[in-house]
Amino acid sequence: MEANKALAEIYAAYRPIAALQSVLEVLHWDQEVVMPQGAATQRAEQLAALQVTIQEKIMAPALEEALLFVEKETSSLSLIEQADIRELRRAINRAKKLPPTLVCELARQDVLSVQAWSEARQKKDFSLFASSLRRMVELKQQYADALRVGSSCTRYDALLQEFEPNETEDSLRLLFEPLQASLVHLIEQIQASSQRFAPNVLQGVFPIPQQEALIRYVLNTFGFSFHEGRLDTSTHPFCSGVGTDIRITTRYDEHDLCEALFGAFHEVGHALYEQGIARERIGTPSGVAASLGLHESQSRLWENMIARSLSFWKHFFPILQSHFSSLQEISLETFWRTVNRVEASWIRTQADEVTYNLHILLRFDIERALIAGDLSVSDLPLAWNSRFERDLGACPPDDALGVLQDIHWASGLFGYFPTYTLGNLYAAQWLQKAEQDLPALYHAVERGELTILREWLRDKIHRHGRTFLARSLCEKVTGETLSPLPFVRYLSKKYSEIYAISWNEQT
Amino acid sequence: MEANKALAEIYAAYRPIAALQSVLEVLHWDQEVVMPQGAATQRAEQLAALQVTIQEKIMAPALEEALLFVEKETSSLSLIEQADIRELRRAINRAKKLPPTLVCELARQDVLSVQAWSEARQKKDFSLFASSLRRMVELKQQYADALRVGSSCTRYDALLQEFEPNETEDSLRLLFEPLQASLVHLIEQIQASSQRFAPNVLQGVFPIPQQEALIRYVLNTFGFSFHEGRLDTSTHPFCSGVGTDIRITTRYDEHDLCEALFGAFHEVGHALYEQGIARERIGTPSGVAASLGLHESQSRLWENMIARSLSFWKHFFPILQSHFSSLQEISLETFWRTVNRVEASWIRTQADEVTYNLHILLRFDIERALIAGDLSVSDLPLAWNSRFERDLGACPPDDALGVLQDIHWASGLFGYFPTYTLGNLYAAQWLQKAEQDLPALYHAVERGELTILREWLRDKIHRHGRTFLARSLCEKVTGETLSPLPFVRYLSKKYSEIYAISWNEQT
Repeated sequence: MEANKALAEIYAAYRPIAALQSVLEVLHWDQEVVMPQGAATQRAEQLAALQVTIQEKIMAPALEEALLFVEKETSSLSLIEQADIRELRRAINRAKKLPPTLVCELARQDVLSVQAWSEARQKKDFSLFASSLRRMVELKQQYADALRVGSSCTRYDALLQEFEPNETEDSLRLLFEPLQASLVHLIEQIQASSQRFAPNVLQGVFPIPQQEALIRYVLNTFGFSFHEGRLDTSTHPFCSGVGTDIRITTRYDEHDLCEALFGAFHEVGHALYEQGIARERIGTPSGVAASLGLHESQSRLWENMIARSLSFWKHFFPILQSHFSSLQEISLETFWRTVNRVEASWIRTQADEVTYNLHILLRFDIERALIAGDLSVSDLPLAWNSRFERDLGACPPDDALGVLQDIHWASGLFGYFPTYTLGNLYAAQWLQKAEQDLPALYHAVERGELTILREWLRDKIHRHGRTFLARSLCEKVTGETLSPLPFVRYLSKKYSEIYAISWNEQT
Repeated sequence: MEANKALAEIYAAYRPIAALQSVLEVLHWDQEVVMPQGAATQRAEQLAALQVTIQEKIMAPALEEALLFVEKETSSLSLIEQADIRELRRAINRAKKLPPTLVCELARQDVLSVQAWSEARQKKDFSLFASSLRRMVELKQQYADALRVGSSCTRYDALLQEFEPNETEDSLRLLFEPLQASLVHLIEQIQASSQRFAPNVLQGVFPIPQQEALIRYVLNTFGFSFHEGRLDTSTHPFCSGVGTDIRITTRYDEHDLCEALFGAFHEVGHALYEQGIARERIGTPSGVAASLGLHESQSRLWENMIARSLSFWKHFFPILQSHFSSLQEISLETFWRTVNRVEASWIRTQADEVTYNLHILLRFDIERALIAGDLSVSDLPLAWNSRFERDLGACPPDDALGVLQDIHWASGLFGYFPTYTLGNLYAAQWLQKAEQDLPALYHAVERGELTILREWLRDKIHRHGRTFLARSLCEKVTGETLSPLPFVRYLSKKYSEIYAISWNEQT
């Protein structure tokens, strides 16, 4: 009885904390989509005030008292209650370790660094960003050191675990090293193939209102709820929001249809995850996505494994052709091969499914060295360029196409990049299991019926929120531990077909 | 020295409070302009959590301790510091009186009542709104009773003072009763005149993109900063924001040019006030508008006294004609008279400058009776209709054109309406003084040079924020106490000209 009362107190105290966290999501959307340029400094103050307030509320003595009480008798709790207790404990321990002054300073430095980065990228001049980034690295090192007090993890582990609970740089290397070897092998085979697909078959003028209308139509078939969500335009596509307010963005290019389309198909994967978390869990400690890698598994599953599949375009390509006359002379097969062509790109976000992961593995190694203090900011461009040349075959012509291309480090997001590749690994594992569970899956996809997959994902993954951590959920759903093999198998099968490479399911 | 330290502590502690308050502004804009419909309940939770948090922070013991210390030695403080101390004291006393449960319940009831109101208005059926409104009136009565503990003010006074510090229902009646008499007299003269201006001279099709382009052009000439602001579309025009992020909205009607134009010219008056508060005052207790009435004086000055003046259109009417071919046959004089025609309207927001105030005085009397408990919600439609018939000459044909037209009461905004008429009185007083200080004012306006007025307003009013309360500021700027006379004189002069009524400056 007493434990029940303490539990009820915990849930009541957590609701406003979660509500304030969801305000951060609204502010983030606002900042990227509509905020006046001159409001950046003021926005930093707002974010800092809100973050410090959330931290104070998480550390409220009454909340931890109730938690200590419940932690004594966890055996009588449901699985979900146990997850809430686990996540609240994680949040409290984290909050107690972080000096509020550091939280504020990071919020302010974020704005300054992003401004400096933006100018540096525009002027293709890393030196304009160097001192800002140096300060950001220092602050994140302090942040990591504060978080890892009393634990044996590395600085990088501490940052990584903000996004991917329980993972470490070592646990990721065990996945990524064999992955890298397999990718290099596959890319060599593709390069040796005689097949080439020129992107110019997709050239044309694609009026933006028609692109948007088409995207809205497809998102509806995916099962995205516009009643509880939005689609907008921003410089960098993203998904943000909680519960009944999930917003995605994409960016349009009148001369490049793929930009907006696949951007939206990626973000809607994130959105379906958020919209699928059981409604009654919203506002509780574990009523959130299991991890960022798991989130990314949803976006990449929809973007690449579904929306770049031949089955998908069997239904949607005729609709696309009816919208855009310049596509009327192209065959379905040519379109499909062209949107899947493998080609080294300077820019990560424009990379194909295969080389994409090399971009991530490069960042993973470089950011670990930065955070460990083994690589100085002034040596960063050189480190980037030489590694890029080794892995992707050429040296970027300038920093805008090189080390300055991503906003993440400017924003202090270290430990974030590996979740993209983790997402690919999880996605392949889900797809393999979904194919087993749903023998009619591709028949449905060929008819444009996508909700069958959304329902499967909702049941197996979305609704659970963070009841299970990512690796446990993977084992629970697929019966197998996380491994790079399903992803390598998926890539090998798909690209063997596209590039006419002989391939054996057993290899 | 010690007092300086306490003062510095106060300013440091208040900054994040002000930042959180400014987040409420972002959420308000978001809710009215972009929020998905399904997110209303979640938004109520966010607002409640934020409001309670702000209240807690204002009541923090350390803040009041520092304040008590400074309050002992106010004589050494600057005028601005004294104002900050006064406003912080007001905020703390207010926060200590309000039960957080009531604050939360009001935030939630707001959402429910607005939903019920919206449906009732659509179906023209007050009964669908009655129980929601009854609950809202009860809650606001409790709220008022909490606020007036230890003071001799009435319930209505307590609500009014949320918007208009130091005013009371009695202080307003002293202004409004002579005003009502003068307005009735002027309206009788106008009705007796032979002049009539048919609105159909303004009929036509006015493409919305061109309307928006024109509005953006005019707002620039007013001196509105788009670098630190936005213009958007919403169902009900409004202005929100703080400091470097001021956003206005308007609504467009392809068949009615005046709707969007004058809506924007009204809201930009609010925006210029906010953009004009001295930058270094933002985030301090008195770095806000002096009152809602003073805010309204800025919007009505720009909308009516400037943007409905003949001088204004001497410059802008040719530009308007060049945008819209259907206006090419109309003379400047006809246009000017038509946009100023006096005509009883069911809807307050569509009323002319003269009858507008009768709409307000009606609401002022009715809402005082509701809050005092002298009028029950079930008797409200009848009370509305009979008063409307007495003052404006006819009984509204349905509740949507009557008691259901405004959102204010659904949102719990009692004591808000009188600030509109107060705004008219202040505006006329500013204009009278500006005309004395700036002999070249109308020459400049005729050349489309509006920043001369904005600079005068910024210097005399905007930059001061709440250093002076509204009536003191009026005396300081104009040398006269607030009175209905300048406004009555302004109306009499303008409408005597428009309606060819003989009028004597001395009357």
